[in-house]
Amino acid sequence: MALSSFILWLLFLAAAPLAVVESIPIYVPGSYKSSLKKDVKNAKPKLPYITQYFPQILDHFTFQPTSYKTFYQKYLINSQHWHKGGPIFVYTGNEGDIEWFASNTGFMLDIAPKFQALLVFIEHRFYGESLPFPEEKLKSAKTLGYLSSQQALADYATLITSLKKNLSSEASPVVVFGGSYGGMLAAWFRLKYPHIAIGALASSAPILQFDDIVPWSSFYDAVSQDFKEASLNCHEVIKGAWTELDGFANKKGGVAELSKIFRACKEISSIYSARDWLWSAFVYTAMVNYPTEANFMKPLPAYPVEEMCKIIDKSPRGATKLSRAFAAASLYYNYSKTEKCFKLEGDEDDHGLQGWNWQACTEMVMPMTCSNESMFPPFPFSYKEFADDCKKQFGVRPREHWITTEFGGKRIKQVLKRFGSNIIFSNGMQDPWSRGSVLNNISSSIVALVTEKGAHHVDFRSATKKDPHWLVEQRRQEMEIIKGWLHEYFMDNSQD
Amino acid sequence: MALSSFILWLLFLAAAPLAVVESIPIYVPGSYKSSLKKDVKNAKPKLPYITQYFPQILDHFTFQPTSYKTFYQKYLINSQHWHKGGPIFVYTGNEGDIEWFASNTGFMLDIAPKFQALLVFIEHRFYGESLPFPEEKLKSAKTLGYLSSQQALADYATLITSLKKNLSSEASPVVVFGGSYGGMLAAWFRLKYPHIAIGALASSAPILQFDDIVPWSSFYDAVSQDFKEASLNCHEVIKGAWTELDGFANKKGGVAELSKIFRACKEISSIYSARDWLWSAFVYTAMVNYPTEANFMKPLPAYPVEEMCKIIDKSPRGATKLSRAFAAASLYYNYSKTEKCFKLEGDEDDHGLQGWNWQACTEMVMPMTCSNESMFPPFPFSYKEFADDCKKQFGVRPREHWITTEFGGKRIKQVLKRFGSNIIFSNGMQDPWSRGSVLNNISSSIVALVTEKGAHHVDFRSATKKDPHWLVEQRRQEMEIIKGWLHEYFMDNSQD
Repeated sequence: MALSSFILWLLFLAAAPLAVVESIPIYVPGSYKSSLKKDVKNAKPKLPYITQYFPQILDHFTFQPTSYKTFYQKYLINSQHWHKGGPIFVYTGNEGDIEWFASNTGFMLDIAPKFQALLVFIEHRFYGESLPFPEEKLKSAKTLGYLSSQQALADYATLITSLKKNLSSEASPVVVFGGSYGGMLAAWFRLKYPHIAIGALASSAPILQFDDIVPWSSFYDAVSQDFKEASLNCHEVIKGAWTELDGFANKKGGVAELSKIFRACKEISSIYSARDWLWSAFVYTAMVNYPTEANFMKPLPAYPVEEMCKIIDKSPRGATKLSRAFAAASLYYNYSKTEKCFKLEGDEDDHGLQGWNWQACTEMVMPMTCSNESMFPPFPFSYKEFADDCKKQFGVRPREHWITTEFGGKRIKQVLKRFGSNIIFSNGMQDPWSRGSVLNNISSSIVALVTEKGAHHVDFRSATKKDPHWLVEQRRQEMEIIKGWLHEYFMDNSQD
Repeated sequence: MALSSFILWLLFLAAAPLAVVESIPIYVPGSYKSSLKKDVKNAKPKLPYITQYFPQILDHFTFQPTSYKTFYQKYLINSQHWHKGGPIFVYTGNEGDIEWFASNTGFMLDIAPKFQALLVFIEHRFYGESLPFPEEKLKSAKTLGYLSSQQALADYATLITSLKKNLSSEASPVVVFGGSYGGMLAAWFRLKYPHIAIGALASSAPILQFDDIVPWSSFYDAVSQDFKEASLNCHEVIKGAWTELDGFANKKGGVAELSKIFRACKEISSIYSARDWLWSAFVYTAMVNYPTEANFMKPLPAYPVEEMCKIIDKSPRGATKLSRAFAAASLYYNYSKTEKCFKLEGDEDDHGLQGWNWQACTEMVMPMTCSNESMFPPFPFSYKEFADDCKKQFGVRPREHWITTEFGGKRIKQVLKRFGSNIIFSNGMQDPWSRGSVLNNISSSIVALVTEKGAHHVDFRSATKKDPHWLVEQRRQEMEIIKGWLHEYFMDNSQD
């Protein structure tokens, strides 16, 4: 799920240097995050995990005196079904509170009894409570410099090794799970630490969203595709709404009028707030276009993209495209019908998401554009402008090609056909991130499980009675494959 | 070859905290290094390489402002036989001047025409000319902190990627070669960067010499084994010589007398200098027990261990064990018969070897002991004492288990049987480092080539007319396997 933040921040960053160009959206991320914070708080008591803290080393790869500083890394553990020597299922945490991921990865809880598995959810450094420095010091490259994916992977390696030793269960096979950025980490963990994890289930992990591996327009093309599939008219209405919206910029009293149309609690300061609000709704809804009612980022009905399009298609004749788009977006923000008005501005993130902003500005550079074919207004991506903005914001420049140097991605089919094993890349084609992920089998044990109607790591959600057959089947296949890895592991061990 | 320094420095370090115990050798490394410096200078004009410098980033894994500092990393290149798109053979440099490794890895030059390969020798950061800080600043953990194997691997990844781009030859397959510590790096590089190197030839790479993977006594047991195989009497004489030598410590005028026996240019200050001198001779001679006359660390005859033992076995009746051992050791220091006396002390290293000392005190912790069965006096290893000494010397403590966490090694057979491909571990059983390496095939493409009579990466030396059949055969097999990797790579590419 956490990839949600990707899009917010990437857009934010990509947009910033181009803010003078009217057609570029500027995001003020946050609204969903605050509600998440609330969700987490509500969910917390229900989570069947014990919270632990591990003294983690600050810098695994250098040996300066400061590298040796330690901080407390949080992890959640559930040993209800486990016996010593049995498998350990580890969730490689992503960019946020670990409870958030634990509460949205019910799949692991669901399957733990069948595997008699120990469950461990490890929080990513610099997120949640796992802060190496006090929060007020987390603005500068001097401290944030230690926030990187490689350090996070080394954290997981160190913590898992230590945990197994403390449990006197060093022979336990470890399988890593992760969704979104966490899924990227899970896949990379299997590739970089095969001696620690026997396999990885990487759900909705866009490890190919770097450099020029996939077309830069693929993400927004996929969002558009979701809407087009639901209704061609719906797609056209949204596509046309942006021009109408932009028209308010130069209109006398336009902003006030727009605020009214958008039922803003407070008059907005710029039309861009309305633009971002609208944009977010469509992107997130595409991501979480789940087959059942769900409350991931916001409460939403089953197949919310279709529901949005129904709203658009059924709008009264004569309604403007913008008002139809607004009505559709309201579904995202107000499915629960509790909002009397909408906070289009000032709902700043208080969830530590600046961590991702930093990551996007250093190593996680995922270029994205909107092509003319998408339902969004066209926008370009410039490495230079992006880098200049990052430099301005953090004092350091991105290393645009570092991820592909460190983790690969180019020619992945040829490389991993001859190297590595035991990775599942699961994806749902409704999820725009799927376009940056692995969608075809690479070898007999590096496989892709793709569902046409799935969305952002839907397989990781708790099973419900309403789950469609294809989702039940996807999860069954995942379990079957993991069972195979474990079987092989125990067989290998018994032969030695 | 460079592993030679391992032993010097490890002994040095292991010994230091125990210096009060009489039976522990204390090394003052250096003599071979100065001669090497000379060798390098002589060899330099003959090396058919062009010297280049690459602006390398200081810290790949953190993003602090200081991480972005660059330094010039040296590499040697030979494109005589290469055409664009053809293979690139990269030597992953170890702890010393890159010319030293290039001049002792004639194998790559020998095979380049057959493969039409580009040759690249990359110098390891913090060695030779590839210093990120001025030499006078390389004493503190603040600067040395950036010297680590992971940073070195990332250097290689970055440099190779950039080089291929600059050569407009991004589709060229890369094979990495390395001997000793360089061999460890080559094997690890294939494991961590399979998207950059299609295979690795790791010669005499003791990747299992960490933690408790192999018995701590294996190294010295192997040295002893070499001598025992040459002559049981020889082994017994050397084993007995240490007590005789120690006897001079408490004898009035003992040190002066010992200096005379050892033909010291200047009277030594302690019997330990003689001890170290003797010890080094046996260890290095075992390592370079080559089948032909060679000049790796010192000029030596073919099978020098046998020659040493002949000297011992043919000594006049009545000669003391110590004088026999001295005569044998003299072969190592004076085969060329140019030395009128021996510098047992004060031949301090001026070759930047403190770099290795640092690495051994941080990540490269290879515990070693002498068992009662060896021909050396027993000595123990204590993590605590070792760590205390490192702390005293550098201000930081070793991370004793980090290498196995980062690179694995435990259960390597089971792990790599199911993961990875295209690594050759070549070893000669005369080389004591072979005991810490991979000596059995792991899978169909992670293989061990072991020769009974081979020594420290003998396969990497230039072919000579006197090479025995088994050595010719070992190199043939290596070429055959590499040919297979390249064939597979080009086939895979042509199918896409």
